[in-house]
Amino acid sequence: MAEALTGEAILAATEEVLRRYGPAKATVVDVAKALGVSHGSVYRHFPTKAALREAVTRRWLDAIHLEMESVLDAGASAADNLRAWLQHLFDRKRLSHVDEPELFATFKVLVSESRIIPEYHLGHLVGQIARIISAGVETREFVTDDVQRTAQAVWDATQMFHHPAHAQEWGNPHIQEEFDAVVSLVVAGLRYNRTPSATGDA
Amino acid sequence: MAEALTGEAILAATEEVLRRYGPAKATVVDVAKALGVSHGSVYRHFPTKAALREAVTRRWLDAIHLEMESVLDAGASAADNLRAWLQHLFDRKRLSHVDEPELFATFKVLVSESRIIPEYHLGHLVGQIARIISAGVETREFVTDDVQRTAQAVWDATQMFHHPAHAQEWGNPHIQEEFDAVVSLVVAGLRYNRTPSATGDA
Repeated sequence: MAEALTGEAILAATEEVLRRYGPAKATVVDVAKALGVSHGSVYRHFPTKAALREAVTRRWLDAIHLEMESVLDAGASAADNLRAWLQHLFDRKRLSHVDEPELFATFKVLVSESRIIPEYHLGHLVGQIARIISAGVETREFVTDDVQRTAQAVWDATQMFHHPAHAQEWGNPHIQEEFDAVVSLVVAGLRYNRTPSATGDA
Repeated sequence: MAEALTGEAILAATEEVLRRYGPAKATVVDVAKALGVSHGSVYRHFPTKAALREAVTRRWLDAIHLEMESVLDAGASAADNLRAWLQHLFDRKRLSHVDEPELFATFKVLVSESRIIPEYHLGHLVGQIARIISAGVETREFVTDDVQRTAQAVWDATQMFHHPAHAQEWGNPHIQEEFDAVVSLVVAGLRYNRTPSATGDA
């Protein structure tokens, strides 16, 4: 059995154990039991319980990063792309919170208990926003003298629609309307400062 | 003693009791003891424990509403006013969180346990933002066809700097920089759509 044990199989089993027992009760022994191996076999792949939990969290977040990457340039303009990207992230988080509340709560705990994971996640997603803004600056649709700082501002201004602390508000009947109003305000902000000579159609 | 007992004295004592025991343990009997009266005397002013808690929360929020009202038109432009108002709210919340963490946590619980209080608080503060935006629309500094919806969007886009769920982030060394970037983006958004003929100085 031990030679067939892959890191990926351990991570899949860990996610299942976390889903079943929750982050407070799940142990490495539970993971080993679920796989029918000794806990030593698990430790050969992941030296500590913290390392195992971090790896499973990273795997979960990487799937989100990859999925978000695929909607980076779906639209006809940078504004469309930004709106679609933010909408996709919001829909995904909202769905995950409603459909799998235990798993959502589990990963909320796992992300917050790590020192490096939140930065890792934020870096990826703010980086994707920066790419959308950068493309908009190229085509003169957006104006900013600091893409990274502006990408962070777009992320911060939309906290209500992706930060898990706001999950309770996602069931509010007016939430999509509020999302639309915030994104419109943000997109208008990214367009401002465009001088008449830069519009191309003046 | 009973004839000297005012609603205001009961509310001041209740705030003190909440500060000392926390929202989970504070009782009407504690409040009565602190005032040297029977709990019946307290119930003569506030029929239930819930009514007393709601009244003390409302009193605390009203002080914030009044203070925020005083910084409504301190600046030379609507943009200055909005920036100063948001900064004042952020500074006040941040200070309260750092200086009086128990009281801050207590009122966070009290606000969230009431069905009508969050709406009451939100209505007041979003209403003040609407007044700033309205004044900016009058002078053609801002453009919007729906002041109330836009005021809500400004509130939502700045959640990170006033929602208590984000209090842990307020100690972040870059938080003021992030605040400045979000407010700049929001103000730019409020200015956009201004047609050349409306600038007055074109």
